[in-house]
Amino acid sequence: MSPAAPTACIIIIGNEILSGRTEDVNLHWLAQALGEMGIRLRESRVILDDEAAIVETVNACRKRFDYIFTTGGIGPTHDDITSASIAKAFGVELARHPDAEAALRAHYGTERLNAPRLKMADIPRGAKLIANPVSAAPGYYLENVFVMAGVPVIMRAMFNDIRHLLKGGPPLLSRTLSAHVTEGTIAEALAQIQHSHREVEIGSYPFIKDGRLGVSLVVRGTDGTALEKAAEEIEGLLHRHTQAVAIS
Amino acid sequence: MSPAAPTACIIIIGNEILSGRTEDVNLHWLAQALGEMGIRLRESRVILDDEAAIVETVNACRKRFDYIFTTGGIGPTHDDITSASIAKAFGVELARHPDAEAALRAHYGTERLNAPRLKMADIPRGAKLIANPVSAAPGYYLENVFVMAGVPVIMRAMFNDIRHLLKGGPPLLSRTLSAHVTEGTIAEALAQIQHSHREVEIGSYPFIKDGRLGVSLVVRGTDGTALEKAAEEIEGLLHRHTQAVAIS
Repeated sequence: MSPAAPTACIIIIGNEILSGRTEDVNLHWLAQALGEMGIRLRESRVILDDEAAIVETVNACRKRFDYIFTTGGIGPTHDDITSASIAKAFGVELARHPDAEAALRAHYGTERLNAPRLKMADIPRGAKLIANPVSAAPGYYLENVFVMAGVPVIMRAMFNDIRHLLKGGPPLLSRTLSAHVTEGTIAEALAQIQHSHREVEIGSYPFIKDGRLGVSLVVRGTDGTALEKAAEEIEGLLHRHTQAVAIS
Repeated sequence: MSPAAPTACIIIIGNEILSGRTEDVNLHWLAQALGEMGIRLRESRVILDDEAAIVETVNACRKRFDYIFTTGGIGPTHDDITSASIAKAFGVELARHPDAEAALRAHYGTERLNAPRLKMADIPRGAKLIANPVSAAPGYYLENVFVMAGVPVIMRAMFNDIRHLLKGGPPLLSRTLSAHVTEGTIAEALAQIQHSHREVEIGSYPFIKDGRLGVSLVVRGTDGTALEKAAEEIEGLLHRHTQAVAIS
């Protein structure tokens, strides 16, 4: 729809997500934040804390998408290997970053700034820092790859720190029409509406609520007038089957 | 740790996840279910309802992992293109499956079984059906690719229908020790424990609770004795810093 809109991919680095221990919440938050900025999230991957997996995934994705955001694996413990792996992906060395070290020293004090904590100041050479107002250890970005923490409150703060660096696209507007109508009942007419409104994208998402099947029809596009026209036709379609249509 | 354990990859097909409209809950449920069966989930991808993306992703992943599970895009509407894309990925045709048609006919009755609903009986040739006790339209599997619905209650029912077909591996046991200790304080000693217990994998996951930083240390492995030994050492390490250690 909008070939000019920048694209993004989110790479979630975390054994704990894949083992089922932890439910990721960063993807949903980032998807919404990017959407609001007009950046099109095209793909997301969850991968292991494994050097080969990180190197391969980052290198495959950073060529294909305008922005890559990674979460996880930048802490002080032995299993935090994201920074070493990102450095390897870019073919650069890890190097102690003086500003990162200063931030950690200010946060921990010299006595508590032990070797594992200092490790968090080792950043791929050439990367620029992303501030961490929660626990000091910074994220960073190198070319189009933004490396952030996995702890949600820290990840969000980091994203807010880099927001101004990201070039947004035309905002993707949307209108959602929901009703207790089954998809199969309206599928044919809906396909015709999609066919005659190619400038918008119509998605159909079934739900089960209070034991009854229903559907949310979502119209998306950058052209507000086209969006309203398609939404009106969809509203008419739903009203042929039920009085109760929720629009948001 | 367990080279013999089967591996898996989950492919979540859904514009609505990437747009931020819907928060995926299937990954976490499947990650836990696979973990309990001793199947190692190695990766997950969220991709668009886009033929090229589905074909490329399914073909890349099905060669690399023992089991592929997809969710989403098998409904009756125009934006449900998973089955056509899976057929293309395998180089086979979509064909009306008589058992799928019979299930839909029993569910909807002949009058309500319109063309869009019948589309859900079009399955890649050679695939075997996965039962859908909720809304009749089946999932299916072809070689090592299991194609399931995106609606969580249906996806779970489908997974339960195919559970017996999946070959599990040795169960991955785990012990979690949590305390209000910061990662950096124990990182060095923890790395030593990991170093002397290579048969287990120790993950360190920081958390913020009641405004205080803490850490969950998770020991995983297939050898219960080795796991207990490592967990005991970690418990000792945490007790050097705090009385309150939660073990689960």
